[in-house]
Amino acid sequence: MAPPQKCSSGATAAEFTEEQEALVMKSWSVMKKNAAELGLKFFLRVFEIAPSASRMFSFLRDSQVPLEKNPKLKTHAMSVFVMTCESAAQLRKAGKVTVRETTLKKLGATHLKYGVVNEHFEVVRFALLDTIKEAVPDMWCPEMKNAWAEAYNQLVAAIQEEMKPLPSA
Amino acid sequence: MAPPQKCSSGATAAEFTEEQEALVMKSWSVMKKNAAELGLKFFLRVFEIAPSASRMFSFLRDSQVPLEKNPKLKTHAMSVFVMTCESAAQLRKAGKVTVRETTLKKLGATHLKYGVVNEHFEVVRFALLDTIKEAVPDMWCPEMKNAWAEAYNQLVAAIQEEMKPLPSA
Repeated sequence: MAPPQKCSSGATAAEFTEEQEALVMKSWSVMKKNAAELGLKFFLRVFEIAPSASRMFSFLRDSQVPLEKNPKLKTHAMSVFVMTCESAAQLRKAGKVTVRETTLKKLGATHLKYGVVNEHFEVVRFALLDTIKEAVPDMWCPEMKNAWAEAYNQLVAAIQEEMKPLPSA
Repeated sequence: MAPPQKCSSGATAAEFTEEQEALVMKSWSVMKKNAAELGLKFFLRVFEIAPSASRMFSFLRDSQVPLEKNPKLKTHAMSVFVMTCESAAQLRKAGKVTVRETTLKKLGATHLKYGVVNEHFEVVRFALLDTIKEAVPDMWCPEMKNAWAEAYNQLVAAIQEEMKPLPSA
Protein backbone atom coordinates (compact mmCIF):
# COMPACT_ATOMS: atom_id res chain seq x y z
CA MET A 1 0.00 0.00 0.00
CA ALA A 2 1.45 3.38 -0.99
CA PRO A 3 2.16 5.75 1.88
CA PRO A 4 0.09 8.93 2.13
CA GLN A 5 1.54 11.61 -0.10
CA LYS A 6 1.08 15.31 -0.47
CA CYS A 7 -1.27 16.23 -3.27
CA SER A 8 -0.31 19.07 -5.55
CA SER A 9 -3.84 20.44 -5.63
CA GLY A 10 -4.15 21.86 -2.14
CA ALA A 11 -6.33 18.98 -0.99
CA THR A 12 -4.17 16.21 0.42
CA ALA A 13 -4.72 12.65 -0.68
CA ALA A 14 -3.55 11.69 2.81
CA GLU A 15 -7.09 12.40 3.97
CA PHE A 16 -8.31 9.49 1.90
CA THR A 17 -7.90 6.37 4.05
CA GLU A 18 -7.32 2.74 3.11
CA GLU A 19 -10.84 1.96 4.30
CA GLN A 20 -12.29 4.67 2.09
CA GLU A 21 -10.29 3.41 -0.87
CA ALA A 22 -11.59 -0.14 -0.25
CA LEU A 23 -15.21 1.06 -0.15
CA VAL A 24 -14.78 3.00 -3.38
CA MET A 25 -13.04 0.07 -5.13
CA LYS A 26 -15.67 -2.44 -4.00
CA SER A 27 -18.58 -0.40 -5.34
CA TRP A 28 -16.79 0.80 -8.48
CA SER A 29 -15.95 -2.80 -9.48
CA VAL A 30 -19.69 -3.51 -9.55
CA MET A 31 -20.72 -0.25 -11.21
CA LYS A 32 -18.14 -0.13 -14.00
CA LYS A 33 -19.95 -2.87 -15.95
CA ASN A 34 -22.97 -0.54 -16.15
CA ALA A 35 -21.05 2.70 -16.57
CA ALA A 36 -23.07 3.84 -19.60
CA GLU A 37 -26.44 3.32 -17.93
CA LEU A 38 -25.30 4.74 -14.57
CA GLY A 39 -23.62 7.73 -16.21
CA LEU A 40 -26.88 8.62 -17.94
CA LYS A 41 -28.87 8.15 -14.70
CA PHE A 42 -26.35 10.40 -12.95
CA PHE A 43 -26.85 13.22 -15.46
CA LEU A 44 -30.62 12.77 -15.64
CA ARG A 45 -30.69 13.12 -11.86
CA VAL A 46 -28.71 16.38 -12.11
CA PHE A 47 -31.24 17.74 -14.62
CA GLU A 48 -34.16 16.52 -12.51
CA ILE A 49 -32.85 18.57 -9.58
CA ALA A 50 -31.70 21.52 -11.68
CA PRO A 51 -33.41 21.55 -15.11
CA SER A 52 -31.82 24.86 -16.06
CA ALA A 53 -28.35 23.26 -15.85
CA SER A 54 -29.09 21.51 -19.15
CA ARG A 55 -28.79 24.89 -20.88
CA MET A 56 -25.06 24.84 -20.13
CA PHE A 57 -24.61 22.06 -22.71
CA SER A 58 -24.67 23.19 -26.32
CA PHE A 59 -25.68 19.72 -27.52
CA LEU A 60 -28.77 19.89 -25.29
CA ARG A 61 -29.76 23.51 -25.93
CA ASP A 62 -30.38 23.00 -29.64
CA SER A 63 -31.79 19.49 -29.46
CA GLN A 64 -35.41 18.35 -29.74
CA VAL A 65 -34.49 14.81 -28.70
CA PRO A 66 -35.59 13.80 -25.16
CA LEU A 67 -32.64 13.97 -22.76
CA GLU A 68 -32.56 10.23 -22.14
CA LYS A 69 -32.24 9.51 -25.86
CA ASN A 70 -29.66 12.15 -26.73
CA PRO A 71 -26.59 10.25 -27.99
CA LYS A 72 -24.19 13.10 -27.18
CA LEU A 73 -25.48 13.28 -23.62
CA LYS A 74 -25.06 9.51 -23.26
CA THR A 75 -21.43 9.69 -24.38
CA HIS A 76 -20.65 12.74 -22.28
CA ALA A 77 -22.38 11.37 -19.19
CA MET A 78 -20.54 8.05 -19.34
CA SER A 79 -17.22 9.80 -19.82
CA VAL A 80 -17.77 12.12 -16.83
CA PHE A 81 -19.05 9.30 -14.64
CA VAL A 82 -16.08 7.04 -15.44
CA MET A 83 -13.64 9.91 -15.03
CA THR A 84 -15.12 10.79 -11.63
CA CYS A 85 -15.15 7.19 -10.39
CA GLU A 86 -11.67 6.36 -11.66
CA SER A 87 -10.30 9.50 -10.07
CA ALA A 88 -11.73 8.24 -6.76
CA ALA A 89 -10.43 4.71 -7.29
CA GLN A 90 -6.91 5.99 -8.04
CA LEU A 91 -6.82 8.73 -5.42
CA ARG A 92 -4.92 6.91 -2.71
CA LYS A 93 -2.43 5.02 -4.90
CA ALA A 94 -1.73 8.05 -7.09
CA GLY A 95 -1.36 10.24 -4.00
CA LYS A 96 -3.18 13.01 -5.84
CA VAL A 97 -6.22 13.72 -7.97
CA THR A 98 -5.78 12.35 -11.49
CA VAL A 99 -8.18 12.39 -14.44
CA ARG A 100 -8.37 10.27 -17.56
CA GLU A 101 -8.49 11.47 -21.17
CA THR A 102 -7.90 15.08 -20.14
CA THR A 103 -6.04 17.26 -17.62
CA LEU A 104 -7.13 19.18 -14.55
CA LYS A 105 -6.02 22.35 -16.33
CA LYS A 106 -8.41 21.68 -19.22
CA LEU A 107 -11.24 20.74 -16.83
CA GLY A 108 -10.65 23.97 -14.92
CA ALA A 109 -10.73 26.04 -18.12
CA THR A 110 -13.94 24.36 -19.35
CA HIS A 111 -15.78 24.75 -16.05
CA LEU A 112 -14.69 28.40 -15.85
CA LYS A 113 -15.80 29.06 -19.43
CA TYR A 114 -19.30 27.69 -18.83
CA GLY A 115 -19.77 29.60 -15.58
CA VAL A 116 -19.83 26.61 -13.25
CA VAL A 117 -20.04 27.75 -9.63
CA ASN A 118 -19.80 25.98 -6.30
CA GLU A 119 -23.57 25.38 -6.15
CA HIS A 120 -23.39 23.37 -9.39
CA PHE A 121 -20.69 21.12 -7.94
CA GLU A 122 -22.91 20.60 -4.87
CA VAL A 123 -25.90 19.47 -6.91
CA VAL A 124 -23.68 17.14 -8.93
CA ARG A 125 -22.28 15.63 -5.72
CA PHE A 126 -25.79 14.92 -4.46
CA ALA A 127 -26.74 13.34 -7.80
CA LEU A 128 -23.55 11.26 -7.87
CA LEU A 129 -24.06 9.90 -4.35
CA ASP A 130 -27.72 9.17 -5.09
CA THR A 131 -26.78 7.33 -8.29
CA ILE A 132 -24.20 5.18 -6.48
CA LYS A 133 -26.64 4.50 -3.62
CA GLU A 134 -29.19 3.17 -6.11
CA ALA A 135 -26.54 1.21 -8.04
CA VAL A 136 -25.22 -0.70 -5.01
CA PRO A 137 -28.04 -0.61 -2.44
CA ASP A 138 -26.78 -3.71 -0.59
CA MET A 139 -23.34 -2.30 0.14
CA TRP A 140 -24.41 1.33 0.68
CA CYS A 141 -23.64 2.68 4.18
CA PRO A 142 -22.66 6.02 5.75
CA GLU A 143 -18.94 5.16 5.46
CA MET A 144 -19.29 4.43 1.73
CA LYS A 145 -21.15 7.68 1.23
CA ASN A 146 -18.40 9.57 3.06
CA ALA A 147 -15.69 7.85 1.01
CA TRP A 148 -17.27 8.83 -2.31
CA ALA A 149 -18.05 12.34 -1.05
CA GLU A 150 -14.44 12.82 0.08
CA ALA A 151 -13.05 11.63 -3.26
CA TYR A 152 -15.49 13.85 -5.14
CA ASN A 153 -14.65 16.85 -2.94
CA GLN A 154 -10.95 16.36 -3.67
CA LEU A 155 -11.65 16.16 -7.41
CA VAL A 156 -13.71 19.36 -7.24
CA ALA A 157 -11.03 21.13 -5.17
CA ALA A 158 -8.46 20.17 -7.82
CA ILE A 159 -10.68 21.47 -10.65
CA GLN A 160 -11.50 24.67 -8.75
CA GLU A 161 -7.79 25.22 -8.13
CA GLU A 162 -7.40 25.40 -11.93
CA MET A 163 -10.34 27.80 -12.19
CA LYS A 164 -8.60 30.44 -10.08
CA PRO A 165 -6.76 33.29 -11.76
CA LEU A 166 -2.99 32.81 -11.43
CA PRO A 167 -1.43 34.84 -8.62
CA SER A 168 0.83 37.57 -9.94
CA ALA A 169 4.51 36.76 -9.37
CA MET B 1 -66.46 24.15 -7.73
CA ALA B 2 -65.20 27.62 -8.60
CA PRO B 3 -64.76 28.28 -12.33
CA PRO B 4 -61.20 28.79 -13.63
CA GLN B 5 -60.17 32.39 -13.13
CA LYS B 6 -57.36 34.54 -14.37
CA CYS B 7 -54.52 34.84 -11.92
CA SER B 8 -52.95 38.23 -11.37
CA SER B 9 -49.44 36.82 -11.37
CA GLY B 10 -49.00 35.92 -15.02
CA ALA B 11 -49.47 32.23 -14.32
CA THR B 12 -53.14 31.32 -14.66
CA ALA B 13 -54.80 29.22 -11.99
CA ALA B 14 -56.90 27.82 -14.82
CA GLU B 15 -53.98 25.48 -15.54
CA PHE B 16 -54.57 23.78 -12.20
CA THR B 17 -57.25 21.14 -12.74
CA GLU B 18 -59.82 19.68 -10.36
CA GLU B 19 -57.91 16.40 -10.45
CA GLN B 20 -54.69 18.17 -9.48
CA GLU B 21 -56.46 19.98 -6.66
CA ALA B 22 -57.88 16.68 -5.38
CA LEU B 23 -54.42 15.06 -5.38
CA VAL B 24 -52.92 17.99 -3.49
CA MET B 25 -55.78 18.07 -0.95
CA LYS B 26 -55.61 14.32 -0.36
CA SER B 27 -51.89 14.32 0.42
CA TRP B 28 -51.90 17.63 2.31
CA SER B 29 -54.67 16.39 4.65
CA VAL B 30 -52.30 13.58 5.70
CA MET B 31 -49.15 15.71 5.87
CA LYS B 32 -50.49 18.70 7.79
CA LYS B 33 -50.54 16.71 11.05
CA ASN B 34 -46.76 16.33 10.71
CA ALA B 35 -46.05 19.75 9.29
CA ALA B 36 -43.28 20.53 11.79
CA GLU B 37 -41.39 17.31 11.14
CA LEU B 38 -41.93 17.40 7.37
CA GLY B 39 -40.98 21.06 7.14
CA LEU B 40 -37.67 20.32 8.82
CA LYS B 41 -37.05 17.29 6.57
CA PHE B 42 -37.79 19.50 3.56
CA PHE B 43 -35.19 22.09 4.59
CA LEU B 44 -32.61 19.47 5.61
CA ARG B 45 -33.02 17.94 2.15
CA VAL B 46 -32.37 21.34 0.55
CA PHE B 47 -29.16 21.70 2.58
CA GLU B 48 -28.13 18.12 1.81
CA ILE B 49 -28.32 18.92 -1.91
CA ALA B 50 -26.91 22.44 -1.63
CA PRO B 51 -25.00 22.91 1.67
CA SER B 52 -23.92 26.42 0.72
CA ALA B 53 -27.57 27.55 0.65
CA SER B 54 -27.55 27.46 4.45
CA ARG B 55 -25.30 30.54 4.39
CA MET B 56 -28.27 32.57 3.10
CA PHE B 57 -29.91 32.28 6.52
CA SER B 58 -28.51 34.59 9.20
CA PHE B 59 -29.77 32.31 11.98
CA LEU B 60 -27.74 29.43 10.51
CA ARG B 61 -24.58 31.36 9.62
CA ASP B 62 -23.79 32.32 13.21
CA SER B 63 -25.00 29.15 14.88
CA GLN B 64 -22.96 26.24 16.27
CA VAL B 65 -26.10 24.14 16.80
CA PRO B 66 -26.55 21.24 14.34
CA LEU B 67 -29.08 22.14 11.64
CA GLU B 68 -31.65 19.58 12.77
CA LYS B 69 -31.66 21.02 16.31
CA ASN B 70 -31.78 24.70 15.41
CA PRO B 71 -35.07 26.05 16.83
CA LYS B 72 -35.18 29.00 14.42
CA LEU B 73 -34.72 26.68 11.46
CA LYS B 74 -37.52 24.43 12.75
CA THR B 75 -39.91 27.37 13.01
CA HIS B 76 -38.92 28.82 9.66
CA ALA B 77 -39.05 25.46 7.89
CA MET B 78 -42.52 24.65 9.18
CA SER B 79 -43.79 28.07 8.22
CA VAL B 80 -42.44 27.80 4.66
CA PHE B 81 -43.68 24.24 4.25
CA VAL B 82 -47.20 25.10 5.45
CA MET B 83 -47.27 28.27 3.34
CA THR B 84 -46.22 26.32 0.25
CA CYS B 85 -48.71 23.50 0.79
CA GLU B 86 -51.61 25.80 1.66
CA SER B 87 -50.90 27.90 -1.39
CA ALA B 88 -51.24 24.71 -3.46
CA ALA B 89 -54.38 23.59 -1.62
CA GLN B 90 -56.07 26.97 -2.16
CA LEU B 91 -54.85 27.56 -5.70
CA ARG B 92 -57.92 26.42 -7.59
CA LYS B 93 -60.58 27.83 -5.28
CA ALA B 94 -58.79 31.15 -4.83
CA GLY B 95 -58.22 31.35 -8.58
CA LYS B 96 -54.75 32.73 -7.91
CA VAL B 97 -51.63 32.20 -5.84
CA THR B 98 -52.21 33.22 -2.22
CA VAL B 99 -49.86 33.03 0.76
CA ARG B 100 -50.53 33.00 4.48
CA GLU B 101 -49.03 35.31 7.10
CA THR B 102 -47.34 37.47 4.45
CA THR B 103 -47.79 38.88 0.94
CA LEU B 104 -46.28 37.98 -2.42
CA LYS B 105 -44.76 41.47 -2.49
CA LYS B 106 -42.89 40.82 0.77
CA LEU B 107 -41.81 37.37 -0.40
CA GLY B 108 -40.52 38.89 -3.64
CA ALA B 109 -38.58 41.57 -1.77
CA THR B 110 -37.02 39.03 0.64
CA HIS B 111 -35.99 36.61 -2.09
CA LEU B 112 -34.50 39.47 -4.11
CA LYS B 113 -32.61 40.80 -1.08
CA TYR B 114 -30.97 37.44 -0.37
CA GLY B 115 -29.99 36.84 -3.98
CA VAL B 116 -32.27 33.89 -4.64
CA VAL B 117 -32.03 32.83 -8.30
CA ASN B 118 -33.95 30.37 -10.45
CA GLU B 119 -31.53 27.53 -9.64
CA HIS B 120 -32.36 27.85 -5.93
CA PHE B 121 -36.08 27.54 -6.65
CA GLU B 122 -35.29 24.41 -8.71
CA VAL B 123 -33.42 22.70 -5.89
CA VAL B 124 -36.20 23.59 -3.46
CA ARG B 125 -38.80 22.09 -5.84
CA PHE B 126 -36.85 18.84 -6.01
CA ALA B 127 -36.55 18.75 -2.19
CA LEU B 128 -40.26 19.53 -1.75
CA LEU B 129 -41.37 16.77 -4.13
CA ASP B 130 -38.98 14.32 -2.50
CA THR B 131 -40.29 15.21 0.96
CA ILE B 132 -43.91 14.70 -0.11
CA LYS B 133 -43.03 11.44 -1.87
CA GLU B 134 -41.53 10.09 1.37
CA ALA B 135 -44.43 11.44 3.45
CA VAL B 136 -47.20 9.74 1.43
CA PRO B 137 -45.48 6.82 -0.35
CA ASP B 138 -48.72 4.86 -0.79
CA MET B 139 -50.53 7.61 -2.69
CA TRP B 140 -47.51 8.95 -4.59
CA CYS B 141 -47.86 8.71 -8.40
CA PRO B 142 -46.73 10.72 -11.45
CA GLU B 143 -50.02 12.68 -11.46
CA MET B 144 -49.56 13.68 -7.83
CA LYS B 145 -45.97 14.73 -8.54
CA ASN B 146 -47.17 16.86 -11.46
CA ALA B 147 -49.92 18.44 -9.36
CA TRP B 148 -47.51 19.53 -6.62
CA ALA B 149 -44.91 20.64 -9.19
CA GLU B 150 -47.50 22.75 -11.03
CA ALA B 151 -48.71 24.40 -7.83
CA TYR B 152 -45.13 25.06 -6.75
CA ASN B 153 -44.24 26.48 -10.17
CA GLN B 154 -47.18 28.88 -9.97
CA LEU B 155 -46.11 30.00 -6.49
CA VAL B 156 -42.55 30.59 -7.71
CA ALA B 157 -43.80 32.47 -10.79
CA ALA B 158 -45.86 34.72 -8.51
CA ILE B 159 -42.86 35.37 -6.23
CA GLN B 160 -40.54 35.98 -9.19
CA GLU B 161 -43.07 38.42 -10.64
CA GLU B 162 -42.56 40.49 -7.47
CA MET B 163 -38.78 40.21 -7.81
CA LYS B 164 -38.77 42.04 -11.15
CA PRO B 165 -38.01 45.74 -11.28
CA LEU B 166 -41.20 47.70 -11.98
CA PRO B 167 -41.57 48.75 -15.64
CA SER B 168 -41.27 52.51 -16.06
CA ALA B 169 -44.67 54.10 -16.69
